[in-house]
Amino acid sequence: MATVHSPELLIVMAPGSTGDEADHVVARLQEAGVDARVSVGREATVIAATGDRELLATLPLEGYPGVAQVMPILKPYKLVAREVSADPTVIEVDGRRVGDTWFGLIAGPCSVETREQTLETARAVAAAGATMLRGGAFKPRTSPYTFQGLGVDALELLEEAKAETGLPIVTELMDPRHVEDVLDHADVIQIGARNSQNFLLLAEVGRAHKPVLLKRGLSTSVEELLMAAEYIAKEGNERIILCERGIKTFETSTRFTLDLGAVAVLKHETHLPVIVDPSHAAGRRDLVLPLARAAVAVGADGLIVETHPRPEEALSDASQQIPTAEFAAFADEVREVVSLMGKELG
Amino acid sequence: MATVHSPELLIVMAPGSTGDEADHVVARLQEAGVDARVSVGREATVIAATGDRELLATLPLEGYPGVAQVMPILKPYKLVAREVSADPTVIEVDGRRVGDTWFGLIAGPCSVETREQTLETARAVAAAGATMLRGGAFKPRTSPYTFQGLGVDALELLEEAKAETGLPIVTELMDPRHVEDVLDHADVIQIGARNSQNFLLLAEVGRAHKPVLLKRGLSTSVEELLMAAEYIAKEGNERIILCERGIKTFETSTRFTLDLGAVAVLKHETHLPVIVDPSHAAGRRDLVLPLARAAVAVGADGLIVETHPRPEEALSDASQQIPTAEFAAFADEVREVVSLMGKELG
Amino acid sequence: MATVHSPELLIVMAPGSTGDEADHVVARLQEAGVDARVSVGREATVIAATGDRELLATLPLEGYPGVAQVMPILKPYKLVAREVSADPTVIEVDGRRVGDTWFGLIAGPCSVETREQTLETARAVAAAGATMLRGGAFKPRTSPYTFQGLGVDALELLEEAKAETGLPIVTELMDPRHVEDVLDHADVIQIGARNSQNFLLLAEVGRAHKPVLLKRGLSTSVEELLMAAEYIAKEGNERIILCERGIKTFETSTRFTLDLGAVAVLKHETHLPVIVDPSHAAGRRDLVLPLARAAVAVGADGLIVETHPRPEEALSDASQQIPTAEFAAFADEVREVVSLMGKELG
Amino acid sequence: MATVHSPELLIVMAPGSTGDEADHVVARLQEAGVDARVSVGREATVIAATGDRELLATLPLEGYPGVAQVMPILKPYKLVAREVSADPTVIEVDGRRVGDTWFGLIAGPCSVETREQTLETARAVAAAGATMLRGGAFKPRTSPYTFQGLGVDALELLEEAKAETGLPIVTELMDPRHVEDVLDHADVIQIGARNSQNFLLLAEVGRAHKPVLLKRGLSTSVEELLMAAEYIAKEGNERIILCERGIKTFETSTRFTLDLGAVAVLKHETHLPVIVDPSHAAGRRDLVLPLARAAVAVGADGLIVETHPRPEEALSDASQQIPTAEFAAFADEVREVVSLMGKELG
Repeated sequence: MATVHSPELLIVMAPGSTGDEADHVVARLQEAGVDARVSVGREATVIAATGDRELLATLPLEGYPGVAQVMPILKPYKLVAREVSADPTVIEVDGRRVGDTWFGLIAGPCSVETREQTLETARAVAAAGATMLRGGAFKPRTSPYTFQGLGVDALELLEEAKAETGLPIVTELMDPRHVEDVLDHADVIQIGARNSQNFLLLAEVGRAHKPVLLKRGLSTSVEELLMAAEYIAKEGNERIILCERGIKTFETSTRFTLDLGAVAVLKHETHLPVIVDPSHAAGRRDLVLPLARAAVAVGADGLIVETHPRPEEALSDASQQIPTAEFAAFADEVREVVSLMGKELG
Repeated sequence: MATVHSPELLIVMAPGSTGDEADHVVARLQEAGVDARVSVGREATVIAATGDRELLATLPLEGYPGVAQVMPILKPYKLVAREVSADPTVIEVDGRRVGDTWFGLIAGPCSVETREQTLETARAVAAAGATMLRGGAFKPRTSPYTFQGLGVDALELLEEAKAETGLPIVTELMDPRHVEDVLDHADVIQIGARNSQNFLLLAEVGRAHKPVLLKRGLSTSVEELLMAAEYIAKEGNERIILCERGIKTFETSTRFTLDLGAVAVLKHETHLPVIVDPSHAAGRRDLVLPLARAAVAVGADGLIVETHPRPEEALSDASQQIPTAEFAAFADEVREVVSLMGKELG
Repeated sequence: MATVHSPELLIVMAPGSTGDEADHVVARLQEAGVDARVSVGREATVIAATGDRELLATLPLEGYPGVAQVMPILKPYKLVAREVSADPTVIEVDGRRVGDTWFGLIAGPCSVETREQTLETARAVAAAGATMLRGGAFKPRTSPYTFQGLGVDALELLEEAKAETGLPIVTELMDPRHVEDVLDHADVIQIGARNSQNFLLLAEVGRAHKPVLLKRGLSTSVEELLMAAEYIAKEGNERIILCERGIKTFETSTRFTLDLGAVAVLKHETHLPVIVDPSHAAGRRDLVLPLARAAVAVGADGLIVETHPRPEEALSDASQQIPTAEFAAFADEVREVVSLMGKELG
Repeated sequence: MATVHSPELLIVMAPGSTGDEADHVVARLQEAGVDARVSVGREATVIAATGDRELLATLPLEGYPGVAQVMPILKPYKLVAREVSADPTVIEVDGRRVGDTWFGLIAGPCSVETREQTLETARAVAAAGATMLRGGAFKPRTSPYTFQGLGVDALELLEEAKAETGLPIVTELMDPRHVEDVLDHADVIQIGARNSQNFLLLAEVGRAHKPVLLKRGLSTSVEELLMAAEYIAKEGNERIILCERGIKTFETSTRFTLDLGAVAVLKHETHLPVIVDPSHAAGRRDLVLPLARAAVAVGADGLIVETHPRPEEALSDASQQIPTAEFAAFADEVREVVSLMGKELG
């Protein structure tokens, strides 16, 4: 039994590859200052590369002749990994907290439509115990024929709602040209599912001094989501809340497939708080409460939920918004599961 | 505003189709005794067909010239639909109940391996409050090089465990040649995920006089699962428990993606009880408890969970089985959420 | 047999819904100037709404009490639909053509890395018969630790390559702040897979006077891709080339699953040219030729392929780039299938 | 640079695992006669296990405390791997060949419905150059309300068609109780997509002395398909034809997503012939020809296609069957691509 340093990468050579090809890989690794160790087996030749991770990431090993597979032994993210921090991260915004034993209940309309709708919703969710107010200002939509959001006016309405209720504002940034506007008005900057791997937006919020709510993309794996968070963290901003909101699968009875297993995995993999958006996953109002309860029970650190005073008049996502009049009852049901999990609203 | 009978099917003609093609469809429908009503619009011609559903199902309308799309207005299942039964179905087996306010906690080893392992597990899960005992007798596996199950000997060991603990036995039927053996020994016949649309097995259990636990397939939609249940019910056996156990998606951090949204949808669509298998979805032990809790919270009527006295010696699915010694603690955690949902172990 | 106007939408009421709920839907539709027609059936009530499509799109019908399902009868896109144009659209750029019998062969490096690499590649692909030159200037990447592109310097190198070879330049726009730079230097503006539904970028290129190469997103359906194209067209720019490049599925033996069935469907649904990117779908060099041949054979109007003089030194996507020295042989193989399909390089 | 034997498996220990846990894994491996080699790195401990593959497959390593991941270095299949056979396998049946330069064109109705339909189809496809006749005898269907096949009578009609045309018969086996009947009448035994991982049927055909046409399941990965083939081969029957027929994804514009990238991968991984079923993937007639052409161009060794004299009267899959009258034109188009690929009908 021999003991040696553990490799960062294993390079498996293809069955028909030659010794010269393996030597060539080793030579390139050594030139780059990486330690290389070859195992020639009966059936496969494996090269173990030990060295600096960032250096290794710059070497296009998959492109070398004879290479069949490059297998990383270590996770490709560091700053957001659980190993970095023994304690779960708590994100605090204006006295509200998300993470560890603090549960965040973020609620509000899909889109900010009018002053009345915004203030009415804000008052109702504040009264029901919500900890932050969400609202969409820019709503680019799948169809070019539908409502596209109020823009900066919406940000101002949200700020007015905050002045009245004290709830910090969560809103989405989708255009790098809006960075200043959004940073001026919002307390938590949301990166939406369709921008989950938009690296230029990730870099912008990575340089911001406000927390980021990063939604998982429709086809983003758990590992890719953590890499996106790493991207933000590497720019200097480690105040990140991850958000599961459903992935695209063959199943069509819900709009997306809410992946609560991913939440359980994320709670193992990262110290960052993880919340769930049951509204977008469900796509229909009557599934929001059961999915919200399940999200709390799986260990999520919060929820982000859509509510509207008169959903049937909503200009976007009408079918999934909870009537504001029913939000207090919703919050009560959620709170019971939150208590059972040993947490409280933050 | 006119009022007419509601159609079962809409047949949308393709943009370039001719009036003759629409007439041809109508003629065929009328020949078959189905009422046909044509709407000629600016852009699309739509034929509404009203008649007997089983009759309509035999007409290959998609194959007719000029037909673009056939859209069913009604759900393709009847016997299992919620509309049929105002009350949720309760399945009772030897005094144990699943459905409505009765929660089923089914536990046991992935495979029956030895007498000692089976009895030890049965005693432990019975003591912890489980309501039924599961155990695999036939274990065809992905790799031809691994353990394939004890077969009929396993069924006898399960029966011995039942004699001692009183727990009804749930075991899988996968070969129509084993129907008699399995019916002789088991109390609930499981149809596994890979046989979820194996219509010949469905027909067999549809003629049996024992309840069926029907697992959702890896790529089976909610509607297809309900059609599979309809298949069983139509043969005469309406004692069916549906089971969500994870679907195949692009995500690889869990073995399958547990689709709890599907459970919430099923609770709306059918009067049948719906349970969840968190073990197979997770593929790893540490995720079983959070997923089990989430399953209860979303409204599931039960759980089916794998446990083994010494998982590291298990001959199949070692990594996902809970050590039997920890099962009582697991059951206690689950029971808390069951109570919160206003249910009790059945 | 009655004949009436054809509806745009069917609104199916939920089984337990009341007549008042149906009346409420009808009243709202009529207020909005839409014709509504109710069919009350034995099992379902269906409301047919006939009126202006854009008007109907603004009504949040899914949010109305008692509504089970809203089914559009007509396709949600118009300008890009095949019905609009009897003839296939041909996109012409500096004398090069894509569409109808003209096949576009777009080739070049994944990323522009150096002047030498760019010119060497441009000369080779021009000599081999390529019709346009591709090259990435901005390369935001999944990992924050890897090469991110040369930016505007890359655009200038591409322009130099064009001056020498005459090949029009295809490059990706990913930041709205780069619109002017990219429009100044490029001939065809690519919208990448991760921005396939980034509606603010779509709006920008919709107002541009250069053709757009719109890639399908990793989880974008054929209908969503056509809606994204409609979004561009609606802003005034109808010179759009669609591009299939693989979708995310459970299969991992290729990086993405190339969906050539989607190409066949698109050729039916739209008059726009449809090309295929076999390089990103495959993720490995040895699959690029077979997938390219299949793409031509299924009826694609072009290919976009990555090639690099020394793939093993490439700073991105090393494993999927064809060595430039082998590109002429690749082009010859492709050309044979192009001829068989009755087309020629444009 | 050290040279040692290459491992079969790497066992990566979890970040917080202890030295004792690693020692425990090593001890268990050594007890089992497997060589174990530990690398203790800065961040991860990796144990390399070198020994007999079948022995290693029986050890439940994922279940051991502290184990994070078990990574196989070698492919899990042997007999079907390309490395085993330098030459591609050619399957010969009654003088007809599939594999290498021989292209198989298998055609016939979805279901055998009547004597007239069967003979008429067989004559037409034989005249058009098809090399084998397909036809379904047992047709269990998603809906219990539709046609279920003629059973043994269908097998006899197929045999009559063979007597007249000389075309070998391909038909599906789906019930182990039909093994004898099917073996008595058919020349090639088809295992359908829904039974792709039905290991008891795979074992049955593994012991048969007739070639097997193994379809890929709707959610079966390329590796799982090869393992299913290995399962058959291990029982003694190595005359296996693999068949890609579309997988289940989020895309709904085709019935399934035809994965031609998988065909290209399979041609690298295995010496077995690989054919494609464009009919089931498309689900609509007008896409069958483009997908068939693409399948030939990607390198498939054959096609299996559905055709019916009067598709609109077909009792199953009406919308995807090519009218028999158009089959000769279809075959001519296919033959052109076959020639281009340097092959001929077998």
